[in-house]
Amino acid sequence: MARVDHIGIAVKNAEASCRFYTEVLGFQVAGTRSTGAMKLLFIKAGNTEIELLEPEAGQVSAVSKFLESRGEGLHHVAFQVDDIEAALAGAKAAGYDLIDEKSRPGGGGDRIAFVHPKGNSGVLVEYVEKAR
Amino acid sequence: MARVDHIGIAVKNAEASCRFYTEVLGFQVAGTRSTGAMKLLFIKAGNTEIELLEPEAGQVSAVSKFLESRGEGLHHVAFQVDDIEAALAGAKAAGYDLIDEKSRPGGGGDRIAFVHPKGNSGVLVEYVEKAR
Repeated sequence: MARVDHIGIAVKNAEASCRFYTEVLGFQVAGTRSTGAMKLLFIKAGNTEIELLEPEAGQVSAVSKFLESRGEGLHHVAFQVDDIEAALAGAKAAGYDLIDEKSRPGGGGDRIAFVHPKGNSGVLVEYVEKAR
Repeated sequence: MARVDHIGIAVKNAEASCRFYTEVLGFQVAGTRSTGAMKLLFIKAGNTEIELLEPEAGQVSAVSKFLESRGEGLHHVAFQVDDIEAALAGAKAAGYDLIDEKSRPGGGGDRIAFVHPKGNSGVLVEYVEKAR
């Protein structure tokens, strides 16, 4: 059964944007990592996680382009699925456009893939299959 | 401890937009209601809920304006809190702008209030205190 793995938020400065979730809501930071193009900051938010995505200086990425065109804000919703290739095939069969036809490595052995927001009411959806 | 109550998505047609969550992800619709200005469709999404917000025909609302200026997409994140007036006071004391200085009735006896996205990295946050 699918569940919300995390909510992704595009920000200019993850440390600064984190403050609302830690100081005001009382959540804890779960960790940070860099993909090379982006700094990711994960926050444990009770029943799910929040992922702050900050472009690394001078790096062009989907998130740096999003910030330029739309500004900071909600960026994507990630759903945990049991079988990511089956989930991608299901979305495609139902008529949704895929950004990733096949899954690719996420952090910590996870597999990830994105469904295009066009045709899905403007919502960028990420699928995550957790490492066993 | 706070948790994510729901993820709000602004859509033009809730029935149509629902399809991705029910047919592709296998979630169930939890219910619908109208606020007068908006039709709300709730989806049980495993560990949290998704709320699709569709403006009622001819009604002007925050959501109809959002659709006009930004189009369909992720609209807000709602956090369940134990004491909503204390949560609002905490956000204000930490320097965040409130849309609602005091909570107001949500559905089913819940109390709700919004924190302004300006000053919170473009993220519109809703607080929800559930009915006892």
